[in-house]
Amino acid sequence: MRVDIGNALASVADPGVGGDALDRLDDRVARAHDRIAAGMADGEFGYAALDLPERTDAAAIESAVAPLADSEAVLTVGIGGSALGAATVSTALGPGEADHYVLDNVDPRDVAATIEALPLSETAVNVVSRSGTTAETLANFLVVREAMADAGVDWTDRTVVTTGESGPLRELVADHGLPALTVPAGVPGRFSALSAVGLVPAAIQGHDIEAVLAGAREARDGLAGSLSACPAYAYGAVAYALDARGAAVNAVMPYAERLEPFAEWFAQLWAESLGKDGLGQTPARALGATDQHSQLQLYRAGPRDKLVTLVRPRERPARPIPETDIPDLAYLGGTDLGELLDAEFEATEASLAAAGRPNVRVEIDRVGPRGVGDLLYSMEAACVLAGELYGVETFTQPAVEWGKRAARGLLGGGDFPEAEAVAEKERLVVE
Amino acid sequence: MRVDIGNALASVADPGVGGDALDRLDDRVARAHDRIAAGMADGEFGYAALDLPERTDAAAIESAVAPLADSEAVLTVGIGGSALGAATVSTALGPGEADHYVLDNVDPRDVAATIEALPLSETAVNVVSRSGTTAETLANFLVVREAMADAGVDWTDRTVVTTGESGPLRELVADHGLPALTVPAGVPGRFSALSAVGLVPAAIQGHDIEAVLAGAREARDGLAGSLSACPAYAYGAVAYALDARGAAVNAVMPYAERLEPFAEWFAQLWAESLGKDGLGQTPARALGATDQHSQLQLYRAGPRDKLVTLVRPRERPARPIPETDIPDLAYLGGTDLGELLDAEFEATEASLAAAGRPNVRVEIDRVGPRGVGDLLYSMEAACVLAGELYGVETFTQPAVEWGKRAARGLLGGGDFPEAEAVAEKERLVVE
Repeated sequence: MRVDIGNALASVADPGVGGDALDRLDDRVARAHDRIAAGMADGEFGYAALDLPERTDAAAIESAVAPLADSEAVLTVGIGGSALGAATVSTALGPGEADHYVLDNVDPRDVAATIEALPLSETAVNVVSRSGTTAETLANFLVVREAMADAGVDWTDRTVVTTGESGPLRELVADHGLPALTVPAGVPGRFSALSAVGLVPAAIQGHDIEAVLAGAREARDGLAGSLSACPAYAYGAVAYALDARGAAVNAVMPYAERLEPFAEWFAQLWAESLGKDGLGQTPARALGATDQHSQLQLYRAGPRDKLVTLVRPRERPARPIPETDIPDLAYLGGTDLGELLDAEFEATEASLAAAGRPNVRVEIDRVGPRGVGDLLYSMEAACVLAGELYGVETFTQPAVEWGKRAARGLLGGGDFPEAEAVAEKERLVVE
Repeated sequence: MRVDIGNALASVADPGVGGDALDRLDDRVARAHDRIAAGMADGEFGYAALDLPERTDAAAIESAVAPLADSEAVLTVGIGGSALGAATVSTALGPGEADHYVLDNVDPRDVAATIEALPLSETAVNVVSRSGTTAETLANFLVVREAMADAGVDWTDRTVVTTGESGPLRELVADHGLPALTVPAGVPGRFSALSAVGLVPAAIQGHDIEAVLAGAREARDGLAGSLSACPAYAYGAVAYALDARGAAVNAVMPYAERLEPFAEWFAQLWAESLGKDGLGQTPARALGATDQHSQLQLYRAGPRDKLVTLVRPRERPARPIPETDIPDLAYLGGTDLGELLDAEFEATEASLAAAGRPNVRVEIDRVGPRGVGDLLYSMEAACVLAGELYGVETFTQPAVEWGKRAARGLLGGGDFPEAEAVAEKERLVVE
C-alpha cells in the first residue's frame, strides 16, 4: 500500500496536521509499534490477527473445499465479520469459476429471491459463525437447508462450515462429517479476513489465495516504528490526528467498483474497533466517481469535520471510449474509461485540497490477489495503531450485546430484562 | 409515512429535543411551510419538485416506452440524480418483467462486465442526462452503443432518452427519432425521482407507476404547517434540531434489502441539498439487521454525534424458519425471518434509547408502489423543510463544479486553471 498524506498537512488543509505535530506523533507511533509487536510475538488476543498471514494455511483451505471445487456458485451464510471479509476478497478478485452470493441479512423477500436464483445442486454453501449460534446466520442456514431438501439436494454434500472449536455448528460437522475450517482463536471477526473466514469462497472460485496471503505478508514485513517508513501506520496515525483536530468522519471512497465491499469492510473495522468510550471516527462509505455526484458538495462545502480517504489501483484494464462526432463530447473520444476515472480521482483530490479539506491518497498496484491482501492487512494494522493512539480496547465490541439479548428475549429465547425495555418505548407518533 | 420521534426527545436522548424547544420549532415549521407552499404555487426553482406528483404524466411515460415493453433487461445509463431515483424505485418494486441494471460509474472492468452479461438485443437502454454532456454518462453511452453495433443490434431500436429541452442528447433524439422524455424544468436531479427520470425503468418493467405517484400525492396532500400534523416535516425538523444540538451525522438504516438504494438516494438528497456554507448533516448509509454487526457498536458507544434513522415496512412477505432440534436454536424454529428482522429492529431501537442515543422510527405500509412514492416524496419535503430551517440554498450544488472543470481540463477538453492545480499537489508519500 502506498499512502500520500500531503493533503492532510496543515499547510494544505484545516483541520490539518502540522510538521511539529507529525514529529510528536511519530514518537507515539514508535511506542505503539513496540506494543503491537509485543502483542504479536505473544499471540495476545486481537494482536494475533496481525500474524494471520503467517499462520493461515492456504493449502489446508484448498484441500478442505476440494470436494466443492466444481461448484457453479458459492453462497456465504454469515453476518458482519463472518461475511464482509469474504465479500471483499471475492468481489475484488471477480467471479472466477463460481459466482459468489452472500446471505448476510434476514429479509424474507431477499432471502427467498436469492435462494430461488441459485442452482442449488451446484451451489457450495459456506456457513460461517464462530459461536455457531448467531441468530441471523443460523436462521438463514436452516432456510437454505430446507430449500435444498425440497429440491432433492443432499445439503451435507454441498456445505462447508467455518466455526469455532465448539458449538452447534461444530457438532453438526461431527454428526455429518462435513468439510470444516476453524475460525482462528484470538482473532475478532472483523480482523479475520485473512483466514478461512475470508478465503473459503475465493478458494472455491479457484483464486490464488496464497497470493492474497503473500500480499498481506509483504505488508506485515513492512511494519516499522515510524509513520514515515510504514504506510499502514502513516494512514492510521494521520486519521487519528485529524479526528483529534475535528475530522470526526472518515469518508472512504474507492475508485474501483470491485473495491465497493472493501469500503463496507473498512467501515466495520473502523467503527467496531474504535467506536467506544465516546471516541471513534465515523466511517462513511462512498464510491468514486459516482459519489462525486452525490456526496462531494457536502465534503467540499459542508462542515470541516471530514477526512476523505481516496483509494485506487495504479493499474486498470483498458476500455477505450469510442470516437464521436458530437462536438461537446469530442474530447472524450479516443481516451479510455480508466483514464476518465483517474482524471476524476485527481480532480476530486485537488478540489478538496483547494477547499482546504483534508484527504489522503491510498493506492495499491492493482485490484488482484496481492493488492487486496496488502490493502486488508495494511488497514488492519492502521486500525490497531489508531486504537493504541486513542487508548481504546480495539478488539472488543461490548455495546452490541444489549440488543442481541433484547432480540432473543422478544423471540421467546429466554428471559431478558432488555426485552421488557422494548415495550416501554417512549412514543411520539406523527402520521 | 409514519414517524415516531419519541426517542429523539430530551427525556430519552442526549442530544435530544426538549418539549419547549419542540414548540418553538413548530413556529418555525409553520413559517417554513408558508414559504414552501408559496414556492410550490409559483413553480419556483426547486420548490417545483414538490408538485411533481401532480405534474408527472404516467400515461405519457408508459406510452413513450411502449416500443421497449418487451425488453428482458433495462440498462440505466446515468449518474447521481439521473440514476439514484430510478435505482431506488426499481429496486423497491422488484424486477417485474425485466431486470434493472445501472451504469453509474466509469470503472472499465465493471462497465465491460455489465455489458457482457446483458442480452443486448433484448435490452432497453435508458440514458439520462439533463445537459446531455455529463462526461461519465456520455462516455458509457458511447461504449454501450459500440457494444450494440458490435453485436449487430440497432441501438436506435433499443434506446430511450430522458434529457433537457436542448443539448447533444436532444439532438440525437431528433436525428434518430428516438423515444424521449423531458427532465422537468425547475427540478434539480436529486429531486426528480418522481418524474420520468425515476420512473422510466419501472414503466418498462411493467410496474404500476401511477400508484407510485398516487402514494406521493397522498404525502403531498398531507403537507401542513405543523410538525405534529405532518410526518415529513416532523422528520426534517427533528433531524435539523438534533444536528443543531450535535448530531452531525444522520445514519439512515432501512430494515429491508429492497430499500438499500433508498439509503443511497437519501444520502444524495441530504448531502447535496444541505451540505453548504459549512452547514449540513452528514448522511451515513447503513442497512439493518446487517449493520448491527458492523456499525452499532459505534452508534451506541462512540461520540454523541449521531441521529439513527430506522426505516421499515409494517408488512413483509412470509418466510418461516424451519423447526430445528439444535437446542441453542430451538427458539428460532417456527418463527419467521420477518419476525426475526422486526425483533432486531425493535431491539436496536431500544438499545440506542437505553444508551441515550437519539433515533427516529420511519415506517411505510409496505415496500410497494404507494409506499415508495410516499417515502420518496416525504423525504424530499423533509429535506426542503430542513433547508429552510438551516437557511441554505437547498436546490443548488455549486461546490461540485470545480472538480468537473479540473477533470475536463485533464482530459484535454479545454483550458481550465483547475487542471493546473492538480499538478501542483502537495506530496508526502509513504511506501
